[in-house]
Amino acid sequence: MTFEEWTRAVLARVETALERYLPATAIEPARLHEAMRYAVLGGGKRVRPLLVHAAGELTGARPEALEAASAALEMIHVYSLVHDDMPCMDDDDLRRGKPTVHVQYDEATALLVGDALQSQAFIVLTDETALDTRAQASLVRELAVASGSIGMAGGQAIDLASVGLALTRPQLETMHRMKTGALLRASVRMGALAGTVPDAEVLRALDVYAAAVGLAFQVVDDILDVTTDSATLGKTAGKDAMAGKPTYVSIIGLDASRALAAQLRRDAHDALAPFGERARRLAELADLVVNRVS
Amino acid sequence: MTFEEWTRAVLARVETALERYLPATAIEPARLHEAMRYAVLGGGKRVRPLLVHAAGELTGARPEALEAASAALEMIHVYSLVHDDMPCMDDDDLRRGKPTVHVQYDEATALLVGDALQSQAFIVLTDETALDTRAQASLVRELAVASGSIGMAGGQAIDLASVGLALTRPQLETMHRMKTGALLRASVRMGALAGTVPDAEVLRALDVYAAAVGLAFQVVDDILDVTTDSATLGKTAGKDAMAGKPTYVSIIGLDASRALAAQLRRDAHDALAPFGERARRLAELADLVVNRVS
Repeated sequence: MTFEEWTRAVLARVETALERYLPATAIEPARLHEAMRYAVLGGGKRVRPLLVHAAGELTGARPEALEAASAALEMIHVYSLVHDDMPCMDDDDLRRGKPTVHVQYDEATALLVGDALQSQAFIVLTDETALDTRAQASLVRELAVASGSIGMAGGQAIDLASVGLALTRPQLETMHRMKTGALLRASVRMGALAGTVPDAEVLRALDVYAAAVGLAFQVVDDILDVTTDSATLGKTAGKDAMAGKPTYVSIIGLDASRALAAQLRRDAHDALAPFGERARRLAELADLVVNRVS
Repeated sequence: MTFEEWTRAVLARVETALERYLPATAIEPARLHEAMRYAVLGGGKRVRPLLVHAAGELTGARPEALEAASAALEMIHVYSLVHDDMPCMDDDDLRRGKPTVHVQYDEATALLVGDALQSQAFIVLTDETALDTRAQASLVRELAVASGSIGMAGGQAIDLASVGLALTRPQLETMHRMKTGALLRASVRMGALAGTVPDAEVLRALDVYAAAVGLAFQVVDDILDVTTDSATLGKTAGKDAMAGKPTYVSIIGLDASRALAAQLRRDAHDALAPFGERARRLAELADLVVNRVS
């Protein structure tokens, strides 16, 4: 199977799982459920679900387990986008090529969509038809730590506090490691933990891989923010620069940012060396993250 | 031990547990952690933790397990207050006798405090020193369902959509059963599930008890909203009436509301009859909920 075929198959399964794991609009409150589905379905690169599935190949995880982990991660990711786009945060009106939730619905609904998607993620992870009790508990912990105050939400707090400041490169890295890196790392770990429990050495190698891919993802985001238009991105381009937010491009420049992304791709590949062919999809995903154009 | 002595001992343990389970301000991002602690510590009636501990007596749950369940429930409850108080929702500036989080800090911080408290609740429930794997998974599921789109967050959505509408009494009951009832019911269930797994009949009786107490809690809230001043309540009095929100008092009147609260207290006691002396604290809590003055 080529990487494209594998990707297409995984994305189809993930979309079906999200569709199934989101509350139906036939259930009250219908408008909230409609808005949750609007936010989650039919858009996004689904990088986290792809990482989950690629990592799950290392530990022989069942498809149902990977679908549940993927759906939960994507719900957490989307909740963070919905809240980040609100007027009191980044105040953005375009996301995944559509009006943001608070524009399409209203602010209160956007707040509740985010809140309810976070709860829904933990409902999904305790689906006993998909995950055994051990996996439920360990995946919940991974996801909660990655999305909380020392992970995604904390990174967002640091991001907001750093507007207009001249961050050093290590400070920028810390912020991104929390804001986007933590959830990408959790994707890799949760995919692996959904199968036969990997030993500590395997998890350490996967952490090195995930740290490189996570940082590369952000560096490429910063590059695309200045080199690509809003229509291609599906979100507002150039907004970090406009908002006075420090980025890799603003701190080390465009060329050095491109070189850094390439180096991080090599670091990711190196970390996978012990796994051989079983880590093929993870290696291809590192390439995808660095070579993407939107 | 009198009820007052029992209550005081439980509240002291819960406060210590919350203190321990909240991230320290010495950890970055310090301001977010400070705001999370500001929101949670040193205030509130802690009704949910009291219900957890009272229900735990029925199934012989360990103190550590009840402390974890209590801390998680209180974090979810407080996150909902922080988000509900924001300008795009109820826009309130007083809570538990202090400025609300978005007033004391700012809106973006309030949003992130709520988000991170929700994650923290699930971190707490996967503390393996407090709960075994089975209990972790079942308590996570109870809490996630109770706080999500068919529970607390969904009830809040219906509440917002009902401003200015003439709700029927069944519609009002549905809204409250979701908005506050679901989490109160989860408190009772999680306390019981933290010990020896109760059989279905016990859980059914506890559900009847929790439904009565949950509804009584709301009826009394509506009564206090019109009969008590802001200083005593620690939050803005009379605001439901001002906001055009339907309440028990506005739909059935003050006298009928008081009679309803008394009837619900009797229903709660009746549901506990099979348990005898082991349910003493639950019975006393039903009295506390109905007789409270703030």
